[in-house]
Amino acid sequence: MEWVVKLGGSLFPEDAVEFCKSLVGKKALVICGGGEFANKIREYDGIMDFSDSASHKTAILCMDILGMLVADKVDGAEAVYSLEDAKKVLNEGKLPILLPSKLFEYLDPLEHSWKVTSDSISVYISWLLKTKILIVTNVDGIYTVDPSLDGAKLIKNISAKKLLTFSETSVDENLPELLLKYKLDCYVVNGKYPQRAISIIEGKSSKYTFIGVEKNL
Amino acid sequence: MEWVVKLGGSLFPEDAVEFCKSLVGKKALVICGGGEFANKIREYDGIMDFSDSASHKTAILCMDILGMLVADKVDGAEAVYSLEDAKKVLNEGKLPILLPSKLFEYLDPLEHSWKVTSDSISVYISWLLKTKILIVTNVDGIYTVDPSLDGAKLIKNISAKKLLTFSETSVDENLPELLLKYKLDCYVVNGKYPQRAISIIEGKSSKYTFIGVEKNL
Repeated sequence: MEWVVKLGGSLFPEDAVEFCKSLVGKKALVICGGGEFANKIREYDGIMDFSDSASHKTAILCMDILGMLVADKVDGAEAVYSLEDAKKVLNEGKLPILLPSKLFEYLDPLEHSWKVTSDSISVYISWLLKTKILIVTNVDGIYTVDPSLDGAKLIKNISAKKLLTFSETSVDENLPELLLKYKLDCYVVNGKYPQRAISIIEGKSSKYTFIGVEKNL
Repeated sequence: MEWVVKLGGSLFPEDAVEFCKSLVGKKALVICGGGEFANKIREYDGIMDFSDSASHKTAILCMDILGMLVADKVDGAEAVYSLEDAKKVLNEGKLPILLPSKLFEYLDPLEHSWKVTSDSISVYISWLLKTKILIVTNVDGIYTVDPSLDGAKLIKNISAKKLLTFSETSVDENLPELLLKYKLDCYVVNGKYPQRAISIIEGKSSKYTFIGVEKNL
């Protein structure tokens, strides 16, 4: 296992499925975000004010749902509940898609809040597995300002420490802190162009944002 | 345990929470439908054509999500994964809300199709537990025609066999067949008026539809 690939829920369903097809045979484990399902929980939470744990656990179930559905449409992909099964599936030449709910019944290392999303969960799994981490989203990476605004520029390299000072970006608010804590670098890439992610995995040049823990970025 | 109460997802969140509050202390087990989450899977299924099993399993996870969230907002309710825990929780004077996903990893008695929804799952659990079954929905019961149409009349009593001949109703298509198979009667009631369900449970008169397996209804 060389990579944990966090697949953004905003790419579900078509782009997420196409992306995973291109990843079969690579040394990667996929973790899906909760997409519109998790958004719906957040929306209901706004009305009902659920406990942080209830929101957190049900949002993780949304990651299971997307993972199962993506795995269902990708020949050579297999949904798994454990890291052991992930390694086994990878050794068989298939693409493991981790359904994190069961793992997180036993491990509970992260804050229960909306600041902690599937990005943070993926970083944590990447740290457990000692892999590199790739965050696949629906924009090209992290921008100087909101990418829908005029003058927004894609950032090629940024330190996690500097990212801490940004407000909303394409990655979750808690991510830079976790990257610093676990001393992990991270790539953010657009999933609508699977070849970009493949290039990163193969060590070739590509379009992305690199978030590094070294201070001199 | 005397009743399995299937709580329709359309009542989520406020009405579902209020309904369950009124049920604490009764000899009932609650099972929630998948609500808008399951609708979303059905919608994606329309685009992606997932396998029946993937749709079925993820729709059951939606029942877990609603169950967890309802339990979170009801003092005296507790989400449980097993029938044994349900009985334990009930004996402590609390209201068990069953999250069916784990049970249905082991038991898989029902057809995997959109005809089989949380109604059928609840009937099956009711049969396992030898309880009566109450289906709580967002209309008063089963009507002669679509309740939004002029002249629609609430049916007080109907045989499961006759219900087989109906097209769309407030219960799932597979329900009458299962009631006949398991020889179970069933009440359908409006969850926006919790007192109606309480009256049924207490053997008092109320507004509902009774679906009986006896032929002479």
